[in-house]
Amino acid sequence: MTNVQDMLETYPGDLGTIDRDALAECIQACFDCSQACSACADACLAEDMAAELRVCIRTNLDCADLCAVTGRILSRQTGNNLVMIRAALEACRTACRACGDECAQHADMHEHCRICAQACRRCEQACQTLLSSLGR
Amino acid sequence: MTNVQDMLETYPGDLGTIDRDALAECIQACFDCSQACSACADACLAEDMAAELRVCIRTNLDCADLCAVTGRILSRQTGNNLVMIRAALEACRTACRACGDECAQHADMHEHCRICAQACRRCEQACQTLLSSLGR
Amino acid sequence: MTNVQDMLETYPGDLGTIDRDALAECIQACFDCSQACSACADACLAEDMAAELRVCIRTNLDCADLCAVTGRILSRQTGNNLVMIRAALEACRTACRACGDECAQHADMHEHCRICAQACRRCEQACQTLLSSLGR
Amino acid sequence: MTNVQDMLETYPGDLGTIDRDALAECIQACFDCSQACSACADACLAEDMAAELRVCIRTNLDCADLCAVTGRILSRQTGNNLVMIRAALEACRTACRACGDECAQHADMHEHCRICAQACRRCEQACQTLLSSLGR
Repeated sequence: MTNVQDMLETYPGDLGTIDRDALAECIQACFDCSQACSACADACLAEDMAAELRVCIRTNLDCADLCAVTGRILSRQTGNNLVMIRAALEACRTACRACGDECAQHADMHEHCRICAQACRRCEQACQTLLSSLGR
Repeated sequence: MTNVQDMLETYPGDLGTIDRDALAECIQACFDCSQACSACADACLAEDMAAELRVCIRTNLDCADLCAVTGRILSRQTGNNLVMIRAALEACRTACRACGDECAQHADMHEHCRICAQACRRCEQACQTLLSSLGR
Repeated sequence: MTNVQDMLETYPGDLGTIDRDALAECIQACFDCSQACSACADACLAEDMAAELRVCIRTNLDCADLCAVTGRILSRQTGNNLVMIRAALEACRTACRACGDECAQHADMHEHCRICAQACRRCEQACQTLLSSLGR
Repeated sequence: MTNVQDMLETYPGDLGTIDRDALAECIQACFDCSQACSACADACLAEDMAAELRVCIRTNLDCADLCAVTGRILSRQTGNNLVMIRAALEACRTACRACGDECAQHADMHEHCRICAQACRRCEQACQTLLSSLGR
């Protein structure tokens, strides 16, 4: 998704002091994690033991939703409201941690959970890095 | 949206000790606020002074997104993770407060902002009430 | 969701010749159906026989997504593009028909599927009515 | 977003005869286009001439929504319903064509519109290719 950086660079307003690399990485990680979580929920659903994976499926669905919205909010720069951005990032980080933990428990048995856990870890880290770089 | 209560009542699992009235009200408020914010962003865009309303439009878009996702997360009961639900509710409450404040500034001039600010206030309150009712 | 009508009435631009009652009903039906489908997917997941309901769960997820987006698109009036609106309505109608048919098969056994099938039928009909009212 | 291919390959069910390369490319194009359209709507909003770009902004918002949902639907393989997938792909293709055409009109003046138009064209093509590869 090479457009993320290009779209940031062509934004006509003032991006302020935000760390653009951390922002671009976080946007990419959010979209990527949202896709992985949607696919993992569906892959869990296709397993013979789907009923035993119901908590994983639900966590995947929530994480897919929160990552999608956070990636969208971060893609906007106009009238940036740090309080709102921090709130979205914190919710996304929490979801990625919960989903990464849940998927990691099934990583040995289900390769899709292993890959999804990685996407969640990367997104959790990207949210943390961006949060740390934001002023209060 | 009378189905919200019906869907909660027919949920086959254990809803636990959650306050069902507060939950149903919050789900309804989230969906309603998401619709109002989407419509308000578009109504602002149609105003002659659209360029001066850009912060309002952006805040509306963020709030529409966060309310939609929070309404969806709250519509799920399986494997409820209180840490994640709290994080989503806090982000949604923050967005509704920001959007309600922003729209309230234009309420005298734009009727759509006045209605939208009301929807935001109701949703902010519903998130707060549900958050207060949740155990830690 | 009484705001739908209010937001349409306070739209500052020209709504054109669109049937406002059909539009408002369709917006409401889309948001309602999206909520019901999200809740039904989750209720199916909580059933002991979740694995046997996997097609229903997946159809619910798709229908929830398409209804949410169609409700959002219909909430916007600025620069209405009939080709795009028709395309969204047709996709939503198709999803509601598929999901209504699927849920109806489990309506005797699962009350949440019965309620969800009703929400899908209402939304399918609302999409059809709005489509019929739109000029080409 | 290299996970798209990995998630497809680790799907535990039967992917059937679907063209996996066309599917993976379409999923990626949908997520990419959704991000570009969200960012372009926001960049247009930040332009001095935002009011004159209102049709572009609205089209961007619709296209971002339809691409996000189509990318999600295509990320699911369980109980694939070709009628529903075709309907989503057709709506997404229509939105990408409309948004690509709209953004292309401003491509000389706004670099973000030029990049967004490219993302729309790629996604329109990916939807078309996948549609053509699907049996009836």
